[in-house]
Amino acid sequence: MGVPESRVAFIQQFIKSKKINGFLVTNIKNIRYLTGFTGSSGFALITGNKRLFFTDFRYKEQAGAEVSGFEVELEKGKRICTLRKFMKKLAIRSLCFEKSASYEFYENIEKLHVRLIPQKDFIENMRKTKDTEEIECIKKAVQRAERAFIKIKPKIQAGIKEKEIALRLEVQLKKEGCTRVPFDIIVASGKNASIPHARPTEKRIRKGDFVIIDWGGEADGYYSDMTRTLLVKDRAISKKIKIYEAVNKARKKAIASVKEGINTQDIDRIARNTIKSAGYGEFFGHGTGHGIGLNVHEPPGISWVKSEVVCSGMVFTIEPGIYIPELGGVRIEDMVLVKNTKAELLTSLSRELEII
Amino acid sequence: MGVPESRVAFIQQFIKSKKINGFLVTNIKNIRYLTGFTGSSGFALITGNKRLFFTDFRYKEQAGAEVSGFEVELEKGKRICTLRKFMKKLAIRSLCFEKSASYEFYENIEKLHVRLIPQKDFIENMRKTKDTEEIECIKKAVQRAERAFIKIKPKIQAGIKEKEIALRLEVQLKKEGCTRVPFDIIVASGKNASIPHARPTEKRIRKGDFVIIDWGGEADGYYSDMTRTLLVKDRAISKKIKIYEAVNKARKKAIASVKEGINTQDIDRIARNTIKSAGYGEFFGHGTGHGIGLNVHEPPGISWVKSEVVCSGMVFTIEPGIYIPELGGVRIEDMVLVKNTKAELLTSLSRELEII
Repeated sequence: MGVPESRVAFIQQFIKSKKINGFLVTNIKNIRYLTGFTGSSGFALITGNKRLFFTDFRYKEQAGAEVSGFEVELEKGKRICTLRKFMKKLAIRSLCFEKSASYEFYENIEKLHVRLIPQKDFIENMRKTKDTEEIECIKKAVQRAERAFIKIKPKIQAGIKEKEIALRLEVQLKKEGCTRVPFDIIVASGKNASIPHARPTEKRIRKGDFVIIDWGGEADGYYSDMTRTLLVKDRAISKKIKIYEAVNKARKKAIASVKEGINTQDIDRIARNTIKSAGYGEFFGHGTGHGIGLNVHEPPGISWVKSEVVCSGMVFTIEPGIYIPELGGVRIEDMVLVKNTKAELLTSLSRELEII
Repeated sequence: MGVPESRVAFIQQFIKSKKINGFLVTNIKNIRYLTGFTGSSGFALITGNKRLFFTDFRYKEQAGAEVSGFEVELEKGKRICTLRKFMKKLAIRSLCFEKSASYEFYENIEKLHVRLIPQKDFIENMRKTKDTEEIECIKKAVQRAERAFIKIKPKIQAGIKEKEIALRLEVQLKKEGCTRVPFDIIVASGKNASIPHARPTEKRIRKGDFVIIDWGGEADGYYSDMTRTLLVKDRAISKKIKIYEAVNKARKKAIASVKEGINTQDIDRIARNTIKSAGYGEFFGHGTGHGIGLNVHEPPGISWVKSEVVCSGMVFTIEPGIYIPELGGVRIEDMVLVKNTKAELLTSLSRELEII
C-alpha cells in the first residue's frame, strides 16, 4: 500500500506553524504510517523541508524497496549518536517527540540540549480516522478472518480440544493470506469462557458449553478483530440463551447508537445499561470496544474511562460480554466504520445464537 | 513454573538499603518474572513489606490462579488513579520506576509529588543470569524448535514456496507444545537470503539457492531462537560453499571464546574478524548475538555497540552471517549457556553444510 504524501506534509505544516525545527518519530506503527516501512526497527526525523528515515543494516534492502519520500540513512551504532549527528547537520534546536517513547529515550534526547516538545498521540490521532485505502485493507482483513472461520467452523463440535480449534483457525488465516495473526486466538469453552482473555487449553468442548472464539485477520498491516460465541446443545440451556440474548441486545443497541458526534462514553453506557437492565451488570467488567487499524488496540477506546467524540472514518469494535464464574460467558464482537449519520458494519458473520 | 520468592525479596532489600519506599514495575515481562502473571496487562507495586499486583477485570481469574506472594487488586479506571490511591494508603514518598516505561507514564507519576528514582534495567539485569528452572524452560523451548524443524525438513526442497515452509514449521512448533512462536519465522531463499530480516514470500526454492531458516520455540514463556542455512544443489556452488564455511568458522570461534569474564565486544570482534579475514567483512552488518529468555532479544547484546562482562548463567545466541546482494546469504545461529570456563551449546542440530 502506498503512503499518501499528505501525512508527512501535515506534520511539516504543524511544525512550521509552531516554529519547531523537527519531529522525531520512533513508534514503529507511526513510522509505517508515515514512511511505508514494515520492518521492526528504525526512526524518522522530519523537518520543515527534510524527511529522513533511519534503519540498520538488517533492513537496508527492505527500506530501499518500501520507503518513498524519505531519504534513507543507516544507523550504525547507538541511536542517540546517529541522532546527534543529524540534529547538528540539520541545525535542529527544537524538537517534537512522541510521549509513547520510553523515559530512557527521553533522558537521552534531553542531553542533546534542544528544546523538547513532547506530543501525546499526535500521529495516533491522525491514524484514528481511516482513509479509503486503509478501509479497503481493513475490509480485506475482515474478509480473510471471516472466510477462515467459515472454513473451520464445521470442526467446532463436542469432543474437539480448544487448542485444536485455535490452531486450525490460525493455519486457515494464513492460508487466506494473513502474514500474521494480530493476537493469540482465544478459544474458551465451558467455565473457561468466564475468563474474558482466556487462552486455549487442552480442554475438549462438551455438551452445554458456551464456546467463545475471538480472532482476527490481517491485510497489508491492517488488522481485524471479531468474536463469536456458540452454544453446544444440551438439555437445560434456557438460562444460557437468556445470557446470550442480553449480550446481543447490548451489541445491537450500541451499534445503533454509533454516529458522528456521539461520545464514546455514551456508546459504552448504552451497552452497559442494557446488560445491567437484564440483571448481569456485575458480569460485564471490560470496555465496550476499541479502535483498530495498524494496531489491534488503538484510539479511540469505547469505555467509561475516557470521553472522545466519534468522527466519520473511525473504525472500532463493539464487543459487550457477560462472564459468570463457573458457568461460562458470552462475547459478541463486531467491527464498525463510522459514516456520518450511522455505523457501517464491517463484520458480516451472523450474530444469532447458533446451537451446535 | 513457580516464581522464586528471592526475586522480589532482592528488590525489597534494594529499596530498604537505599531508603526508598517503593518500586513500581510496569514492564509486562518483568511482571511475569516477579509475580508469575502471564496476562498482558497489569502492574506491581513493591514496598519494604508489601507486594501488590494490579490487573483489570479481564484477568481477574487468571491472576488469582497464577500470582502468588502478591496481594491481587483490580484496576477499574485510569492506572494513575489506582496508583495515587495506593501510594497514599502505603505512605510512599519515594519510588523507583523502570526507565523502559513511557515518557507519558513518567509525566503522570511525576504529578504524584513523590521523589522518583528511575532505574535502568534493574530487573532486566536480574533476568540476565538464568536459574536452573529457567534454563530447563529454555532447553525445552530449544527441543521443541529442533523437533519441529526435523519433522518439516524433508519438505525443504526445490519447488516449495518459502511461505509454505514457514507455515508448516509454525504449525509443527505449535504441535510440539509451543503456545506461540517468539517471532515471525524467516524463510529466505536465493537472493531473498541477502536480506537478514526477510519475510517469507511466494517465491519457490530453486537450484543453487541458499535457504535461510530462522525460527524459535517456546516453553512456559521462555524462548529459543536458531538459524540454519541449507544449500540447494546445483553445478557451480564452490563460491557459496566458501561463504558458508566462513560463517561457520566465525560461529565456531565465537562460541569457543565464550566463558565467564570475557567481554561481549570481544566475542563480537572474534566473529567479525574471522569473517573479515575471509574477505567478507562488509557483508556482516549486524551484531553477533543477543540474550534470550522471556524476550527473544534481551540483554546482554553481543555486538560492537556495548561492552558487558559475561557471567555464568547467561544465555545468548551466536549468529554471524554474510549477506551478498543478488547472490544470497548465510546465517548460522546457535544458543549458548555460559558455565564458568566455557559455553554449553543448547542447540544440537548439525551446523555442517547440508546440500539438499
